[in-house]
Amino acid sequence: MTFEIISVGTELLLGQIVNTNAQEISRLLSELGFSVYYTTVVGDNPERLKQALKIASERADGIITTGGLGPTADDLTKETVAEYCGLNCVIHQESREKLEQYFTAKGRYMPQNNLKQAEMPEGCIVLPNDCGTAPGAIVESGKNVFIILPGPPKEMRMMLNNQVRPYLERKADCVIHSKSLRVFGIGESAAEEKLSPMMQQMTNPTLAPYAKTGEVEFRLTAKAETVEKAEAMIAPWENKVREILGDFVYAEGENQSLQQTVVELLLQKGMTVATAESCTGGLVAKKLTEISGSSEVFHCGAVTYANHEKERLLGVKHETLAAYGAVSEQTALEMSQGIRQRAGADIGIGITGIAGPGGGTEEKPVGLVYVSICTEDDHLAYRLQLSGDRDMVRERASMYALDLVRRAVLGILTKEYIW
Amino acid sequence: MTFEIISVGTELLLGQIVNTNAQEISRLLSELGFSVYYTTVVGDNPERLKQALKIASERADGIITTGGLGPTADDLTKETVAEYCGLNCVIHQESREKLEQYFTAKGRYMPQNNLKQAEMPEGCIVLPNDCGTAPGAIVESGKNVFIILPGPPKEMRMMLNNQVRPYLERKADCVIHSKSLRVFGIGESAAEEKLSPMMQQMTNPTLAPYAKTGEVEFRLTAKAETVEKAEAMIAPWENKVREILGDFVYAEGENQSLQQTVVELLLQKGMTVATAESCTGGLVAKKLTEISGSSEVFHCGAVTYANHEKERLLGVKHETLAAYGAVSEQTALEMSQGIRQRAGADIGIGITGIAGPGGGTEEKPVGLVYVSICTEDDHLAYRLQLSGDRDMVRERASMYALDLVRRAVLGILTKEYIW
Repeated sequence: MTFEIISVGTELLLGQIVNTNAQEISRLLSELGFSVYYTTVVGDNPERLKQALKIASERADGIITTGGLGPTADDLTKETVAEYCGLNCVIHQESREKLEQYFTAKGRYMPQNNLKQAEMPEGCIVLPNDCGTAPGAIVESGKNVFIILPGPPKEMRMMLNNQVRPYLERKADCVIHSKSLRVFGIGESAAEEKLSPMMQQMTNPTLAPYAKTGEVEFRLTAKAETVEKAEAMIAPWENKVREILGDFVYAEGENQSLQQTVVELLLQKGMTVATAESCTGGLVAKKLTEISGSSEVFHCGAVTYANHEKERLLGVKHETLAAYGAVSEQTALEMSQGIRQRAGADIGIGITGIAGPGGGTEEKPVGLVYVSICTEDDHLAYRLQLSGDRDMVRERASMYALDLVRRAVLGILTKEYIW
Repeated sequence: MTFEIISVGTELLLGQIVNTNAQEISRLLSELGFSVYYTTVVGDNPERLKQALKIASERADGIITTGGLGPTADDLTKETVAEYCGLNCVIHQESREKLEQYFTAKGRYMPQNNLKQAEMPEGCIVLPNDCGTAPGAIVESGKNVFIILPGPPKEMRMMLNNQVRPYLERKADCVIHSKSLRVFGIGESAAEEKLSPMMQQMTNPTLAPYAKTGEVEFRLTAKAETVEKAEAMIAPWENKVREILGDFVYAEGENQSLQQTVVELLLQKGMTVATAESCTGGLVAKKLTEISGSSEVFHCGAVTYANHEKERLLGVKHETLAAYGAVSEQTALEMSQGIRQRAGADIGIGITGIAGPGGGTEEKPVGLVYVSICTEDDHLAYRLQLSGDRDMVRERASMYALDLVRRAVLGILTKEYIW
């Protein structure tokens, strides 16, 4: 069974928004093993939408539309699909009541044009909207099925995952299931080199790298009859990847960030961390405190941009700064030690470097960053030469710092350059 | 003249990447006054691409493709367009030399299949690629023009702005020019209410709001023969908007962030700021230090997540914390005063609140944030009740803090609730 996606919305054609809906739907279809050969964007214009429906329904079995379900006169997707299928739209009582309740709850009278959102193509499967006013619909018509979804990404996503996914799973004759391993501290090409002999042997599951800022995700993907069977096929290969990449693998799952991993590890061990940041300017603290519950493991951080603040807040020695400069191994070491002692934390982190674009010299170029960690047993600093612009250097440096905390908690810190 | 965009790439149909290229091209076309009625995505498959080219070239005058210009066997966009137009591909000597130089500079021998990137449709306008190996092309064929661009966003963007834009400007009979005013501290609907009588009078230029996280952008857009004429048409309306919104307008231009504005103002006045953050966890410091040159105006920040750190690092009184709690006006006031004094800064900022999802009570619900500012003349705190999830509350709180700094530097702080 093949699918096409038609995104309806003039704001897409004007480039005011990016089409994330098409991406999310494409991912789901691909995961369920359906082929997608084309996707189309069309404006809020019923004639052109009808043309797009005609072309798509001749090429594909299933059509998924997004957008054009609002209450205004130019929201016409549902009506156009119904007309294309030769169906009338009729009031769907349950949707009408839900709409009225929605307005009553807000203490407002429902405008008459909102009623149109409860008019659904005859005989369709109505998809209730759990976070908005526009219900969606599934219309089965001849050889085609039309799945009509709202445009706002949050509403679309909820309907797609909760209602369309189970419907499509019943139509699919196989599932495509993936598992991601998140890797930090080894570049994409270095990791691929290690895994390439294995990747070449693999057909199902497959293994593919996805480079992200400063990290790589390796995705194992299996095609099988059920998710359980796919998982069983993935498991032995996952073990092999883990064996080869070792402790560069910091987490699994597409949404597990390095800071999430670090906060969870610290919570498990009942340990605390404190940060002293220069070039990252609070980015490590910001990342740690993104995670709900981080107040248990993170009590304070200092952003010491100026040299005298490194002395005042962290106790970095004036002589150290004078002799080696602010961007030096020695300063980084005193920063991590100073913040650890003063905050009474188990782990202290110190970061100093040149984020650019200004401030670089031949000896200390832009992208030079020292990251230091101080624990009860260890007191180490690492010299990094990072590439990219100011944001990138700061982002990468903050990730190295978080990875050091992860390694410290796991007891796998090494004196040598680990990455 | 109407245009369509065809994005070529199986990775788009699998949902592995989002189609930012289509958005960027759509924006440019809209800005130049061209209509776009459809955009299409198709995989790396010459037969299907040919079908898409046929459909698009019958509906539109101009077709812009992205993707499929790589050196591998499945990169066939250029070849397919040439075939569709009945043209041969021939070696373009200049592109060939550029390719060879590219590999020589990297100390590598050029693989034979890269040569195909220098094969261009006969008689086309070649678009050199300034940050990659694949040149683009403009093929004028009958009533259609085909503009062939690479897929990697960076390469696409550079070619689009530097080479395609001037070409299209010559074809356009008018320009659509916009100017954005960035507004903080007044909600979208409140701002719209103030501007709505004026918006209803306007036809050319038009005025439209674009809501962003915590702020609103108002865009004035004029259609005219030249950019200069459009600017002249916009100017009087801009003055009216500024008159109505007053000091809620913090900057102009699509890319001028609040932190950029704040750092520039501080630099102008030779003033410094220091931050004491609890719930925002370093976000304000991170935003300030994003801006190159911020080291002149920002010397230090403290992230005091734990109560005892508020005492130790900022000198917040134990009794204050005991009597009013960490999330209180009194604590916020002592935080801003403490950091200002200890850092010797002109302006001190204190932020304390409940970002959620945990930690809320009936009296102090999630989203309650106190932001305080301390200067030579003023010492004020503001109570905010912010909506949204943890990230949103933190983001919004950090923007209010930055806006306070802006107002302090401009001398427009008020005791009452300004926003």
